[in-house]
Amino acid sequence: MRIVLTAFLLFLLSAPALRAQEAGWVEAYRGVADRIIDAALDDSAAFDRLAYLVDTFGPRFSGTQNLEDAIDWVLAEMAADGLENVRGEPVMVPRWVRGRESLTLLAPHERELQMLGLGGSVATPPEGIEAEVLVVGSFDELRARAAEAAGKIVLYNVPFTTYGETVRYRTTGAVEAARAGAVASLVRSVGPFSLYTPHTGNSRYEEGVPEIPHAAVTVEDAMMMQRMQDRGQAIRVRLYMEARTLDDVPSRNVVAELVGRERPEEIVVLGGHIDSWDVGQGAMDDAGGCVAAWEAVRLLKALGLRPRRTLRVVLWTNEENGLRGALAYRDAHLEEIENHVLAIESDAGVFKPTGFGFGGSDAAYEVVRAIGRLLERIEAGAVTRGGGGADIGPLMRLGVPGMGLSVDGSKYFWYHHTNADTLDKLDPHEFNLAVATLAVMAYVVAEMPERLPREVPPGG
Amino acid sequence: MRIVLTAFLLFLLSAPALRAQEAGWVEAYRGVADRIIDAALDDSAAFDRLAYLVDTFGPRFSGTQNLEDAIDWVLAEMAADGLENVRGEPVMVPRWVRGRESLTLLAPHERELQMLGLGGSVATPPEGIEAEVLVVGSFDELRARAAEAAGKIVLYNVPFTTYGETVRYRTTGAVEAARAGAVASLVRSVGPFSLYTPHTGNSRYEEGVPEIPHAAVTVEDAMMMQRMQDRGQAIRVRLYMEARTLDDVPSRNVVAELVGRERPEEIVVLGGHIDSWDVGQGAMDDAGGCVAAWEAVRLLKALGLRPRRTLRVVLWTNEENGLRGALAYRDAHLEEIENHVLAIESDAGVFKPTGFGFGGSDAAYEVVRAIGRLLERIEAGAVTRGGGGADIGPLMRLGVPGMGLSVDGSKYFWYHHTNADTLDKLDPHEFNLAVATLAVMAYVVAEMPERLPREVPPGG
Repeated sequence: MRIVLTAFLLFLLSAPALRAQEAGWVEAYRGVADRIIDAALDDSAAFDRLAYLVDTFGPRFSGTQNLEDAIDWVLAEMAADGLENVRGEPVMVPRWVRGRESLTLLAPHERELQMLGLGGSVATPPEGIEAEVLVVGSFDELRARAAEAAGKIVLYNVPFTTYGETVRYRTTGAVEAARAGAVASLVRSVGPFSLYTPHTGNSRYEEGVPEIPHAAVTVEDAMMMQRMQDRGQAIRVRLYMEARTLDDVPSRNVVAELVGRERPEEIVVLGGHIDSWDVGQGAMDDAGGCVAAWEAVRLLKALGLRPRRTLRVVLWTNEENGLRGALAYRDAHLEEIENHVLAIESDAGVFKPTGFGFGGSDAAYEVVRAIGRLLERIEAGAVTRGGGGADIGPLMRLGVPGMGLSVDGSKYFWYHHTNADTLDKLDPHEFNLAVATLAVMAYVVAEMPERLPREVPPGG
Repeated sequence: MRIVLTAFLLFLLSAPALRAQEAGWVEAYRGVADRIIDAALDDSAAFDRLAYLVDTFGPRFSGTQNLEDAIDWVLAEMAADGLENVRGEPVMVPRWVRGRESLTLLAPHERELQMLGLGGSVATPPEGIEAEVLVVGSFDELRARAAEAAGKIVLYNVPFTTYGETVRYRTTGAVEAARAGAVASLVRSVGPFSLYTPHTGNSRYEEGVPEIPHAAVTVEDAMMMQRMQDRGQAIRVRLYMEARTLDDVPSRNVVAELVGRERPEEIVVLGGHIDSWDVGQGAMDDAGGCVAAWEAVRLLKALGLRPRRTLRVVLWTNEENGLRGALAYRDAHLEEIENHVLAIESDAGVFKPTGFGFGGSDAAYEVVRAIGRLLERIEAGAVTRGGGGADIGPLMRLGVPGMGLSVDGSKYFWYHHTNADTLDKLDPHEFNLAVATLAVMAYVVAEMPERLPREVPPGG
C-alpha cells in the first residue's frame, strides 16, 4: 500500500508535465462527473425536502423536541431512500433554555429594544437588572475605562469587519465585562447589515470570574447608544433574562452510508449539522448543508454509482452550542479514524458554490485540486488552501484531510444566527449546484484507485 | 396682477427662444443658489440635530408623550434659531394603542412568530383567536375561495411590486376578509426585502362589515405559510392583540416662518410630518424631512437671505394614522390658501435627492423646472410631472401648487414603518444635499418677482 501510494504521488508531482498529467488522470472521470452534475441540476425534490424539513420542524435547537423530531424524520427518509446503515448515534447535548427576555430603554426615552440572549448566558434576577450603559469600542477601551464600568452594563459597539474578528466580543464579552465590575454585558450583533435584526450565538464564562447576563442588541441600537453616550446623554436600561442551563439530554448524530464496493472500510465522510439556533429556520445554518450532503449520496445511489470506498453522510448534532456531536462522532469512530480518507463539511450556506477550502497535505491538495477541474463547468472548481469546518475539526486534528464547501458568502452574515435564516434566502438552482459540487468531489475521492494521500511520506 | 402674470407666462412660453429665456431669468439666481448649496454642504449641525431628535424622543406616535416632547423641543430650538412666529397650532389626533400582541404558530410546529398589529385594528378576545390559516394571493383569490375562509384567519401573501399596488391588502384587507367570514386577517409585510422585519401601517374598517383583528407578518413567515399550504400542511396559529382606539387627544402642527420682506402675505410652505409610527425611530419617515425643511429656512436666515415672500416651515402632526394635522392646517389657514404660492413636502426619506415631483399648472411647471437647473450641480435638478405629498394634499386639492422632494428611493421600502427606520440608514452628506435642494427651490420661488402661476388663465 505504501509503495503504491508513493508511486502515485511521484506521478502527481513529477514536473514539468505535472498539470497535463493531473488533467490526464482526472479526465477519466469527466463523463461520470457530467452525469452527476446534469442529474443534480435537473431536480427539485431535494430543495423541496429542505423546505419541508425547515417548515415542518422549525428551528432545531439542542435539547428541543423539534430537533429530535427532525432527526426521526431524516432517519426515516434516508431509510426510504435506500441508504445503508442508517442510524442515529447517541450524543448527550447541553440544554440551554432562553426563556423570556427583554431589554427596556428607560432614558433618554422609554422603549422596548429587541435583543437576543446569548447561548450559555445566565439569567438576571427576577426583577431584572436596571443600570446605566457604558459603551466601549474594544476590549482595550474597556480596560482603559474599567473605573467607569463598575455597576454598569457594558455594551461592546464593535462594527463588523470579519466574523473571526468581531465574534470575540460575543464569545468572551461577559468575562471581560465582569472583570471590569460590570453587572451585565451587551454586544452589537455580529453582522454587516441589519434591518433591526439581532444575532444570537454562543458565549462562555471563565472559572473564577463572575457570571453576568450577556445578550446581543441590534446594530441600530448599538449605534444609537453610542451616539447617546457621545453627546453626553445618560443611557439607562432594564435587562430581563430567564436564561438557564438544564441537565444534558440525549440527541443523535444522523449517519447513513453508501457502502463501498471494493474498500468498504475506507470512508469519505460528508455532511453538515442538523441542529440550529433557536431562532429562524436554520435554513442555511445548516439544514441546507445537511440536505445537500444527503442528496449528493442519494443521487449517486440513484444513478447506480456505488464507488470503491464508502460514502458516509453524517449530520452532526449540537454544533451550535457545544460541538458535542462532532466530539461524540470522533470518539465513537476512533478505531476507524485511520480509514477516514476525507471529511467534507458544508456549513457556510448553500449559496452558489465556488469550490472547496482544503486542509491536508500538499500531495492531497494536488489531487483534490485536480478533481476541482471537473467542476469548472459550473464555476465550482476552485479548491483553495485552508479550510474545514467545526464538525470535522476533531477528525482533522487527528490527521484526517478535511474540506469545507466554499460558496458566495457575501450575505451569509446578514442572516447568520437570526430569525432571517429562512428558506426564502436560498435559491433552488444554487442549492442544486452545491449538491453537484459535493457529489462530484465525494464520488471521485471515493472512487479513484489510489487513496487520497494523508501526508507526504518521509522523503516522498 | 392678472396682467403682469399673463405677460410673465407669455414670456415663459414664447417659442422658439423658450429654453434660452428660461435659462436667462433663472441664471440671475445662480450665485445665490451656489452660496446656499455651499453652506448646506458645509454643515454637520443639522444632521446632529436630526440624530438628537430621534435618539432623545424615539418614535413619535400620535397620542404619545414622546411626540409632544419632541414638538416642545423643536419649538424651543426654532425660537432659539431666531425663526419667526414660531408656534404649535392645535390639532386633535386619534390615539390608537398597540398594547401587547403576539402570533404563535401552533402547527405544523410551535413557535412565536414576529408580527405587528396594523394601525386602527381592534383587539382579539382576551384568550386570543386560535384558528387555521388560509393563504391567498389576491382579493380575487379570496373571493374565489370564500367558502374556505369562514372561521379562518386569512393571510394575504402578496409579493411587493409597488407600494400603491400592495398596500391595498394592508389598508382594506380586514374588510374583505371579514366579508368572507374570516375571524382575523394577516398581511405579508409591504416591503421588497426583509430580514424578518414586520412593517406596520394604517388600516381601516367599513361600516356594516364586522371589525376583525388585522396584523402584519414578515415576508419570511408569509412565504413559509404559503409553502405549508401548498404542500397540504394544516397551519394553525393563535393571534393575540390588545389593540384599542382611545379618545382623541391634543397635538400640534409646528409652524415657524421667515417673514417675507416685500410680500409677507404670500407664503411658500415647506415641511414634513413630525409624527411617526410607534416602531423604530421614524428617522426617514419623517424626522429627516422635517429637519431638512427646518434647516433650509434656518440656513437662509443665517445667510441673511430674507426673500420677498414668507417661507413657512410646517411640521404636520398625525400624518401616519389620520392626516389630522394636514386637515387642521388647511382649515386653520383657509383664508390664506389663495396666498399659498407653493407647498413643498419631503416625506420619501432624505436619501440622495434627484429633484422634485411637481403638481400644478404647465406654466408653473416650466418655472420650477427652470429653477431645477440651479440644482444640476448637485444632480438634484430633475423636476418631473406629478407629485406632492400626503400632508400638502389638502392644500393641493384647493389649488395650491405642490411638490415632493424626489430622492433615490431604492431602499426606502426596506425600512418603511419598521423598527429599521433608524438614523444609521441616512447619510449626512445626502441629508445636506436634501437641505440644499429644498432651500434653493423654496428661496427662488419666494424671491422671484413674479408669483408662481397657479393656473393658466383662460386663453392664456
